[in-house]
Amino acid sequence: MKISELSRRTGVPVASIKYFRRQGLLPAGRATAATLAEYGEEHAERLRLIKALTTLGGLSIAATREVLGAVDQAHTSEGALGAISYALPVPVAGQSPADPEEEAEAETAAGAEVAELLADLDWRTPATSPHVQGLTSALKELRRLDAQYAPGELAAYAKLAEAVARLDLERAAGLDDPVALAERAVIVFAICAPVFELLRRLAQENQVRRRVADAGTGPAAPA
Amino acid sequence: MKISELSRRTGVPVASIKYFRRQGLLPAGRATAATLAEYGEEHAERLRLIKALTTLGGLSIAATREVLGAVDQAHTSEGALGAISYALPVPVAGQSPADPEEEAEAETAAGAEVAELLADLDWRTPATSPHVQGLTSALKELRRLDAQYAPGELAAYAKLAEAVARLDLERAAGLDDPVALAERAVIVFAICAPVFELLRRLAQENQVRRRVADAGTGPAAPA
Repeated sequence: MKISELSRRTGVPVASIKYFRRQGLLPAGRATAATLAEYGEEHAERLRLIKALTTLGGLSIAATREVLGAVDQAHTSEGALGAISYALPVPVAGQSPADPEEEAEAETAAGAEVAELLADLDWRTPATSPHVQGLTSALKELRRLDAQYAPGELAAYAKLAEAVARLDLERAAGLDDPVALAERAVIVFAICAPVFELLRRLAQENQVRRRVADAGTGPAAPA
Repeated sequence: MKISELSRRTGVPVASIKYFRRQGLLPAGRATAATLAEYGEEHAERLRLIKALTTLGGLSIAATREVLGAVDQAHTSEGALGAISYALPVPVAGQSPADPEEEAEAETAAGAEVAELLADLDWRTPATSPHVQGLTSALKELRRLDAQYAPGELAAYAKLAEAVARLDLERAAGLDDPVALAERAVIVFAICAPVFELLRRLAQENQVRRRVADAGTGPAAPA
């Protein structure tokens, strides 16, 4: 197909396609004349992934290039998923100012809490995972605020997270092509994470409203 | 207590305390001399909430003033929780460019999907809730990307979100004072939301690693 057709099919403007070409994100088409090139299905697929990474994922051109390299080298679907999972921004917990001594103490305690949790769950995640580091830093913050999880509480959340992750992977199942799977993974990370968080807030809202109604301090809702 | 003691107790610098005073976020202390004031426990508590809202919650002074007003008017714990839940930033799903016609069609379909979900679950959340609107906009984006949830899938996520929300509310239970509860709620929204998301990513990572090991394409992990 010509570049105009490639643009129509993927929803990416011709100028952006040319820019991605110059930046080395998209392989060249097959030259059919001095200024014309023929593009194939693999270009359309890769372009959709580039679009997902740069718009939904909010990645820079340099970061997108790295992810594409990792997806290309992955060969397997699992490898492609892993590359996307490590490349997209890790959720960050809010931070408040602290004194350095308090900080070091909380860091040690949080590190031990995470290590124990992962061992109890038998989750095979290396200490170098950005998610292990992100979790440690969030738990450190909770300790400093004196709002840490009670024993067993974090494990209860983790069990629910495991069930959610199972649904996530089911949604990605059936996609064998690493590039298509990578695109789907970006969508899951960038949109389905906020969706779950919104469902959680809605559920909180519902439960609070029911309590108010049950306590008789608000109008009873129709059954 | 003097302002220096109030600062030490809450970890908020004296200059910031004076600034919050001038901005009307913190009530005046009891004047003991022309330039001295005596502060009480209620000042410390309110200051901790202000700190949580401005640092963890990332709210502006104007937004913080509004939330404090809502918490003050709430009288009940549930009211305070609701004020915090509506005031803190709603999780936002990534967006990609779209043509207006596609947009309108997806919006209608997503709105119907959310309404049906909430009715099926019997969740008492008004259509004006920012979470209902956020969910509609995320589902719209998924439709436009041709990645919408299959029938029943969204309900499966919602059931898990309900279990997570139940844990959230258990964590807030036992706090009867609306100001202390509001502070706890800010912590839950600002830190515990990323914690769950990190647990979900860790669980995904673990499940992908297990699949690779089971498929024999990677080294088998010890049992």
